Amino acid sequence: MNPTQALTEQLIACHSVTPVDGGCQDLMLSRLLPLGFVVEKLHSNGVDNFWARRGTDGPVLCFAGHTDVVPTGPLHDWTTDPFVPTVQEGMLHGRGAADMKASLAAFVTAIERFVAECPDHKGSIALLITSDEEGVATDGTVKVVDLLQARGESIDYCIVGEPTSDRRFGDTIKNGRRGSLSGNLTVKGIQGHIAYPHLARNPIHQLAPALAELAGMEWDRGNDYFPPTSWQVSNIHGGAGATNIIPGSVNVQFNFRFSTEQTADGLKQRVHAVLDQHGLEYDLQWNLSGNPFFTAPGELSRALQAAIETETGVQAQLSTTGGTSDGRFIARICKQVVEFGPINATIHKVNECVAVDDLPRLSGIYYQTLCRLLG
Amino acid sequence: MNPTQALTEQLIACHSVTPVDGGCQDLMLSRLLPLGFVVEKLHSNGVDNFWARRGTDGPVLCFAGHTDVVPTGPLHDWTTDPFVPTVQEGMLHGRGAADMKASLAAFVTAIERFVAECPDHKGSIALLITSDEEGVATDGTVKVVDLLQARGESIDYCIVGEPTSDRRFGDTIKNGRRGSLSGNLTVKGIQGHIAYPHLARNPIHQLAPALAELAGMEWDRGNDYFPPTSWQVSNIHGGAGATNIIPGSVNVQFNFRFSTEQTADGLKQRVHAVLDQHGLEYDLQWNLSGNPFFTAPGELSRALQAAIETETGVQAQLSTTGGTSDGRFIARICKQVVEFGPINATIHKVNECVAVDDLPRLSGIYYQTLCRLLG
Repeated sequence: MNPTQALTEQLIACHSVTPVDGGCQDLMLSRLLPLGFVVEKLHSNGVDNFWARRGTDGPVLCFAGHTDVVPTGPLHDWTTDPFVPTVQEGMLHGRGAADMKASLAAFVTAIERFVAECPDHKGSIALLITSDEEGVATDGTVKVVDLLQARGESIDYCIVGEPTSDRRFGDTIKNGRRGSLSGNLTVKGIQGHIAYPHLARNPIHQLAPALAELAGMEWDRGNDYFPPTSWQVSNIHGGAGATNIIPGSVNVQFNFRFSTEQTADGLKQRVHAVLDQHGLEYDLQWNLSGNPFFTAPGELSRALQAAIETETGVQAQLSTTGGTSDGRFIARICKQVVEFGPINATIHKVNECVAVDDLPRLSGIYYQTLCRLLG
Repeated sequence: MNPTQALTEQLIACHSVTPVDGGCQDLMLSRLLPLGFVVEKLHSNGVDNFWARRGTDGPVLCFAGHTDVVPTGPLHDWTTDPFVPTVQEGMLHGRGAADMKASLAAFVTAIERFVAECPDHKGSIALLITSDEEGVATDGTVKVVDLLQARGESIDYCIVGEPTSDRRFGDTIKNGRRGSLSGNLTVKGIQGHIAYPHLARNPIHQLAPALAELAGMEWDRGNDYFPPTSWQVSNIHGGAGATNIIPGSVNVQFNFRFSTEQTADGLKQRVHAVLDQHGLEYDLQWNLSGNPFFTAPGELSRALQAAIETETGVQAQLSTTGGTSDGRFIARICKQVVEFGPINATIHKVNECVAVDDLPRLSGIYYQTLCRLLG
């Protein structure tokens, strides 16, 4: 069996539903320590993290990722046990197969090969691994980055192993992510009997024109690297079921995915302006999950693109679409952060799987990137 | 003790939470049968109704009402047992005291006095009594009216004993009620991840401008007798709590209270036109609780106003505000339907009560109206 597949299977067998690591990190460290990595473990509120580095010089090329996986969902919907790695028709099945235990295994095997061939490589190889990416992400990568930042360490190149490939393995590198800003809005009215509307003030009616304005707003047109900023309502709730009562309030939860054309504060101001202009009495709580980050095409993305083309023949496109990732934290101490990994079609779904043939190729891509940047 | 107070207390002592009659109707009939009333009982799905008539000629003056009461709500919030009539500081307490056991008692004592003085009165005295007014109202008054209509009977004057007095006893007669038309609207979108809005269709966003238009619509300006038609949303619900999902649908419940300027069909058409114009994919279920009814000022309202002024010195105003009542059903077979009864400040609340002093006055008002119309 290919060594990347073997290690991926060992990692899948670890029960590591977020934020539990389930032994994955010790498994990785048992392979890294013999290579001369200096390892720092950081435990925080039940989350396991480690920072490992081989070498003391720059540039620092870091592989970043997470050992935790999302819950399985209903087990009866799975055709295999999600924690028993199983190959069926060329696909390796298991929770985390694609997101992102294949990448973790490929990090390790690529480094093993590179260090064996190039023990006195330039700069430093590093790994930043957490078990808190699929959850609230407050005790994981952000904590390690805080620590590095506090002692003045920085990273030159970072590859996050997120499953970025879309239709074909190798077709997409993420070189940035949109920001995510959420709001929890409560519009207050005056409750009353529906037969006496003049004695009440219907908060749903008051909200409606403001909601229409926000839903119809063009926030920006995006730019060369980002799609337009998007505002979406995820939940709206008003009324406790009684059909003869005008409710006293209505609650709306919404989320911005925003480009580098915006700042969180700028978006907040625009929302408040609309609500105020419509004369609403409201309470609005904001939560900034992450600012957008962007890595301009450069050394790292070019090295990775060349490695992908050599290994797969595919020309990888740079993209900033999709959800957030831990890249947003690492970008604070690293000018070049990109993400690359397997096809993401089955992630967060039942019967998650990764193509067996893509595993050695993924390792090969990481290996060749190491050669190009630190060889 | 005044006979109207005594009978009101006997009726309060009957446990008659809707649709249970609890013995109220037999108590009333035990007083009406000796007076020569011909009684027809109509039982329908656990609901008790009766139609009683004294005389065979026209005109027919009918007293209408209900023996059922709304539930008590939390007993610990009551200062007295809601089914033990209790006088405190001039107020008779008990569930149904004002809505509408006082009126039922006053009907009976007024008729007793009138028949004693005027055994050969003109026309006919009738009573239409149900135990299904506070509930769904499908097996009560509407069934008796169906029966009367089927055999070609009509009513000339009808007084419904609903508690219509507002600030002072005698200040308000209802001479009509608005119609009530409800809608249950589901707007359909396409569910998706909030990070990929181009793959979803947010039904809340699609609904918003239509909702704003409906909330801002002037349906009519009312007329001399009715306030403007009102459209109110009672409930809006979209999203199952997840903040990263664009929901697949949003549900809105709304209600029209509409004047005689509108028809239910006309209102439906206008709502559909707005929804269609905004290109919504939707499902809309309608429920017509009642059409509006209206009794132009005439013999009945004038007789009642004169009786009120004689008894209380108050000039009663005609009004069509407030919720629906069984008057909407009776209007099908009666050109003059009005409603008059005690002060409604405590109805449907804990510690419901009626002023002891108003009980003989209420009986007196019904008695004098009998004298004016059938004397």
